[in-house]
Amino acid sequence: MAVVCHGHQRLDQHSPPRLALLPMSSAASDHELFMKQAIRLATENPDAPFAALLVNRKSGDIVATGINQSSTNPTLHGEIAAIHDFAQRSGEGWNELTLYSTAEPCCMCQGAILWAGIREVFFGASISDLIRIGWKQIDIPAQEVVHRSWKPELTIHGGVLAEDCKQLFRDAISDRRR
Amino acid sequence: MAVVCHGHQRLDQHSPPRLALLPMSSAASDHELFMKQAIRLATENPDAPFAALLVNRKSGDIVATGINQSSTNPTLHGEIAAIHDFAQRSGEGWNELTLYSTAEPCCMCQGAILWAGIREVFFGASISDLIRIGWKQIDIPAQEVVHRSWKPELTIHGGVLAEDCKQLFRDAISDRRR
Repeated sequence: MAVVCHGHQRLDQHSPPRLALLPMSSAASDHELFMKQAIRLATENPDAPFAALLVNRKSGDIVATGINQSSTNPTLHGEIAAIHDFAQRSGEGWNELTLYSTAEPCCMCQGAILWAGIREVFFGASISDLIRIGWKQIDIPAQEVVHRSWKPELTIHGGVLAEDCKQLFRDAISDRRR
Repeated sequence: MAVVCHGHQRLDQHSPPRLALLPMSSAASDHELFMKQAIRLATENPDAPFAALLVNRKSGDIVATGINQSSTNPTLHGEIAAIHDFAQRSGEGWNELTLYSTAEPCCMCQGAILWAGIREVFFGASISDLIRIGWKQIDIPAQEVVHRSWKPELTIHGGVLAEDCKQLFRDAISDRRR
């Protein structure tokens, strides 16, 4: 499985390099544009600024969105909310989707991404970043969840606009302490 | 964290024994009765006989149920469906709940159980059992998910009516191959 990292992050430097089977038509800047959209969405829940988008790689369209709503249902992290949104709207063509998330999917969300058949993930802040900032987390990297599964074609790219994403999570913690 | 195992299973024999903080008023046979209910529920989806119950430990009432509906929404494993059911019905008192599931929660479901604050899990067939039978699985034991989190008071008990549960999953695989 190819693991592409941006910025300072190295998710799995020991994984054997493997080409992603899906064409990557978007330039890196497109990924940043989608992450900016995820960040904008995350600001709608400043207490838990976890948000996710699902983008159809062929059309480049945002086909589903999700904002953390865990105060009403503990499973509704941004990624799960986006998956529900897509399941309700269409529910077909999961393998054409790329997920963008302000934070690395936890094992609940990465499990959901695997079961759904989504083949590409871009995230901003890592689980390690979140723990350092003070967030309660399950310390299992998304890449490890994939590695311990049936090893589908799924690439995970970490650290996209990581500083902007980390700032969201720092601000949320600061606001709580005020 | 106390880990109690039934039958041949040893989930985490190296964990330091620790008493569960919640009173266990039910006898072992009660757990089997609840598991029988979960098995009965699972037969409603013979292709994917994963089902779960949430039981209030104080009242002994079944307060939510879930059957695998992953063909309509990939996140809807039995456990997640039961959590949604409880969130919709009440959404309060998660720490009073015990979850019964025909199979060991995958990391998606165990993550959801953690985030919800459920403090006790009983399962039938283990992830290892499912893999041996031929099911595609994420090979991360539920106990490991808990161990790599913030380590809440949560006990996991494996192997309840394991043979009956394993037979459900064997039958489902046999039916597929027919």
